[in-house]
Amino acid sequence: MRRSFRISGAGAYLPENRVPSAALEEQLSLPSGWIEKYAGVVSRPVAKHETNRFMAVRAIEQALQQAELSQSDIGGLISASATYDSPLPNNASRIKAALAGSESYDYPCVDIDVTCLSFLPALDYAVSLLSEDCRHVVVVSAEIASRGLNSEDIETYTLFGDAAAAVIVSYDTSFECGAMKYSLKTYAEGAGFTTIKGGGNDFPFSEVAYDPALHTFQMQGKQLLKAASKRIPEFLDDFFTAIDPSEVDWVIPHQASKAGLALFHKLGLFPEGKIINTLSQMGNCIAASIPYALASSIQEGKVKRGDTCLLIGTSAGFSIGAMLLRY
Amino acid sequence: MRRSFRISGAGAYLPENRVPSAALEEQLSLPSGWIEKYAGVVSRPVAKHETNRFMAVRAIEQALQQAELSQSDIGGLISASATYDSPLPNNASRIKAALAGSESYDYPCVDIDVTCLSFLPALDYAVSLLSEDCRHVVVVSAEIASRGLNSEDIETYTLFGDAAAAVIVSYDTSFECGAMKYSLKTYAEGAGFTTIKGGGNDFPFSEVAYDPALHTFQMQGKQLLKAASKRIPEFLDDFFTAIDPSEVDWVIPHQASKAGLALFHKLGLFPEGKIINTLSQMGNCIAASIPYALASSIQEGKVKRGDTCLLIGTSAGFSIGAMLLRY
Repeated sequence: MRRSFRISGAGAYLPENRVPSAALEEQLSLPSGWIEKYAGVVSRPVAKHETNRFMAVRAIEQALQQAELSQSDIGGLISASATYDSPLPNNASRIKAALAGSESYDYPCVDIDVTCLSFLPALDYAVSLLSEDCRHVVVVSAEIASRGLNSEDIETYTLFGDAAAAVIVSYDTSFECGAMKYSLKTYAEGAGFTTIKGGGNDFPFSEVAYDPALHTFQMQGKQLLKAASKRIPEFLDDFFTAIDPSEVDWVIPHQASKAGLALFHKLGLFPEGKIINTLSQMGNCIAASIPYALASSIQEGKVKRGDTCLLIGTSAGFSIGAMLLRY
Repeated sequence: MRRSFRISGAGAYLPENRVPSAALEEQLSLPSGWIEKYAGVVSRPVAKHETNRFMAVRAIEQALQQAELSQSDIGGLISASATYDSPLPNNASRIKAALAGSESYDYPCVDIDVTCLSFLPALDYAVSLLSEDCRHVVVVSAEIASRGLNSEDIETYTLFGDAAAAVIVSYDTSFECGAMKYSLKTYAEGAGFTTIKGGGNDFPFSEVAYDPALHTFQMQGKQLLKAASKRIPEFLDDFFTAIDPSEVDWVIPHQASKAGLALFHKLGLFPEGKIINTLSQMGNCIAASIPYALASSIQEGKVKRGDTCLLIGTSAGFSIGAMLLRY
C-alpha cells in the first residue's frame, strides 16, 4: 500500500435535464442511431439551471451523508475540475461559499487541474493532507461541458455530459484500504491534441471577440487515439510490475469516448464485465467521469469494501494516469 | 520539521518591458507620485511579446541551472498560477510542451490554483511527490495580470505586474531544511471580495460579449483589507504556537498591496528590515509574487542556507496561507 486512507463516503449529482441522442440526431440531421454507434452515448445529463458549484454542493452533501459526517468534520476541500463558474476565485472557494453554514469553518480550498484526470492528483494530494488533526478531506469534481461546445463539431457536441461527484477521503492507518499505486505521466507530444484556445492570455476576451474555433473545445480525436493506443500499453506495463492485473476487481476508466473505452477492452488484461461503462447514459463528464463511475458503482453495490479498483484514463496535456485503489 | 526537502534552485523571468508609474499617471491623469503613495508601486514589468509559458520556461531554466540539474532529473512539474495562456489544457502541460526537448520525458504536469497563494499548496504537494525515485519536482508560477485589468479601475490597474518564478524542490531526508509548518485557511465570508465574473459557466463567452465589469479583475479592496486585518492576527496566533516569531529570519509576504503589506508591519511581530518588499519595483504579480520574492532574495544573497523564511499571504477565496521554510 502506497498510502493508507479510506473513502468513507461518495456522492453524485446529475442535472435534472437529460438530452437523448435521438433529440440531438434530429437537431443535427444525423441518421437515427448514429450517435450511439459512433460516440457510444444514448443519453446525457445537460445542466440548465445548475451551476458547477450547485452540483458540487449536492454531491458533497450526499457524500457527507453516506460517511455520516458533517461540514464540521472537514479538514479540506479540493476541487478537481476543468470547467468553472468563473475564472476567479478558484472553484473550491466558490463551492465552499455555496455550502450552507460554511462561514463557520476555515478549512482550506484548493483547485487541482489536469483536465479529465484532475480527480487522481486531487485524491493523491487530499491523502497527503490527512493526519490525526485533519481526518477528512473532500474531493469534488463538478463539470459543465455543455456550455463550451460547438454545435457544428459533431464529434465533440454529441460526446459530453454534465455532472458532479464527490468523495470523502478519511484518515485510516490500517493499511487495509487506500492507494496501492498511483502514477501520472504527461507526454508533451500531445499538448495540442485537445484545446480551448481562447479566453486566456493568448487570446484575451478584451481583444478577441467570440469565435467558436477559438472559444469552444477542440479535439484532434484521431491523433489522440493514436497516441493513447501507443502509450497506454507502455504505461500499464510499467504500472503492473509488482502487482498483477488479475488482482483488479473493477476497472473504472475515464469515459473519454467509445473508441477510448474500447482501448481498455482490446488490451486483453481485464475481463469485459470488470470494465465500468457510464458513457452510454452519461457521456464524457470530463473530470467528473471517474468519480461518478466510482460513486455510482459503490451505490449500486458493484464495488464492495476490499475491492481493488483501477481508476485510469487520459486527459488533455496529453496525460495518462492511474490509481490502484483498495476501497 | 513537518516535511524535509531542499530547494536546490530558484529562478525568475521578468518581461523586458517596464512601465513606470509616472507613465501610468500621465495616461490616467493622476497627480505625479499618486501611484507610489497609494499603491506602493514605482514601476512594474508588463509582458508584451511574452506568454505565461515563455516566462515559465525561462524561470525553470534558470532554476535548473542554479541547481545544476537538467530536465532529465525532473520527476514532476507543478504550475501554480491564477492566469493562463489558454483554458485547456492546463498550464503545466503547455509549459512542458514549451520546454526544449520535453518530448523525451514523461514527468507529470499538474496545475494547482489558490489564486495569489497557489505557490504554497503547490510546494506542499510537490514535496509529497518526492521519493528516492522522484528526486526533483519543479514548481513554477507565471502570471500575466496586465491583460485582465480594467484601465478605468485605478486601484487595480496601477497595482499589478507580470513575472514568473520557479523553484526546484529536491528529495532530502536530512531534516535540516524543508517546511517546519504549513497552514492554509479559507474564509467563505470573503469569496466575493476578489473576482473575475465572466468567461466561465456563469457568463459563457458564447452568450455574453466582453464587458469590462464582467471580464476584468474586480477587487473590493476595503472589505478585503478589513477581513485580512481581522483574520491575519488570529491566523498567526494559531500558526506560532510551537514556534516563536523571533525565529523567523525573513518574512516573504505576497505583495498584495501597500496596505496589505503594511498589515505585516503593524503586527509588531517582525522587525521592519526582515520583511521583503518587491512591490515597489514589481507590483502585485499574483501567485508569482511569493516565489519571485524568494528567488530574488536568494539571488541577492539575503536569504542564506539555514535561514528560516515565513512565506505568507492572502488570496481570493478568501484565504490566508503560510509556510515556514528552512532554506
